[in-house]
Amino acid sequence: MQDQEAFRLAFRRLAAGVSVVTALDPEGAPVGFTATSLASLAASPPMATFNMARTASAWRAVEQTEHVLVHILGARNRAAAHTMSLDAQLRFRGDHWVPGPLGLPQITDVPAWMLCRVIGRYPVEQNAVVVVRIEDGGFGEPDEPLLYHQRQYWRPGPAIEE
Amino acid sequence: MQDQEAFRLAFRRLAAGVSVVTALDPEGAPVGFTATSLASLAASPPMATFNMARTASAWRAVEQTEHVLVHILGARNRAAAHTMSLDAQLRFRGDHWVPGPLGLPQITDVPAWMLCRVIGRYPVEQNAVVVVRIEDGGFGEPDEPLLYHQRQYWRPGPAIEE
Repeated sequence: MQDQEAFRLAFRRLAAGVSVVTALDPEGAPVGFTATSLASLAASPPMATFNMARTASAWRAVEQTEHVLVHILGARNRAAAHTMSLDAQLRFRGDHWVPGPLGLPQITDVPAWMLCRVIGRYPVEQNAVVVVRIEDGGFGEPDEPLLYHQRQYWRPGPAIEE
Repeated sequence: MQDQEAFRLAFRRLAAGVSVVTALDPEGAPVGFTATSLASLAASPPMATFNMARTASAWRAVEQTEHVLVHILGARNRAAAHTMSLDAQLRFRGDHWVPGPLGLPQITDVPAWMLCRVIGRYPVEQNAVVVVRIEDGGFGEPDEPLLYHQRQYWRPGPAIEE
């Protein structure tokens, strides 16, 4: 099997939680994107990672900023997840965000957000692994986590018993 | 809010797909672990990342090996996910694995697996981000993806319509 085919078919069978990463570009304009790569790295000190293309509209901001906001999305945030994955110039049209901590764009009504300091950027080919240190956070109403799988958004179903 | 509390509560609200990473240690013994951090990095060339503690039992192998097998787990693989998260000496007791490509431990009956070359290891405090290049793969019967959330395993529920 070709390597790209193996990759494509395997990741089609993986589900992911959905988050939104936002930042301010060097001119102070809001940037951001919907991510399915957010992963915990450590609890102490609290750190996480996400991946992005260095060709992405938000890369110039993420490359230079000290802080990003990372939002954990719930099932009720499906529309925001979709909006933040549209063409870059459409992502901040609407009332789904407000200026938040440090002036960073904050997606409203999410179950949780984290203020993160960018502590590592590892370029790999045309992409980058970004490592962040969680400095602060806040919470909204709880919700089921928003899932992404096979190019669709989902809610969790039943827990699987032992 | 304290940074660790923010981290803990936020990640409790995120769901993750479940995978199992396996390798051979320098003595040729099987090692592996259940991961919730597997993330796509790029489709071309096909690459992915996962995170682990450098105190983990499998780190010595992952630090030195050229290849790992990454398995995408389905709902039917819940027992294997559990077994591969037990104490290290218990993870390969059972018939849930066979010697696979390059002799690497292969979890049986998974929806998909990928043979991966380790191309980057980025230490961060006591942890590491591992970058892999997908070289080959194979597939089993399709299944719903296995999810992990709030210390339990789940199946996906209904898709969320626009």
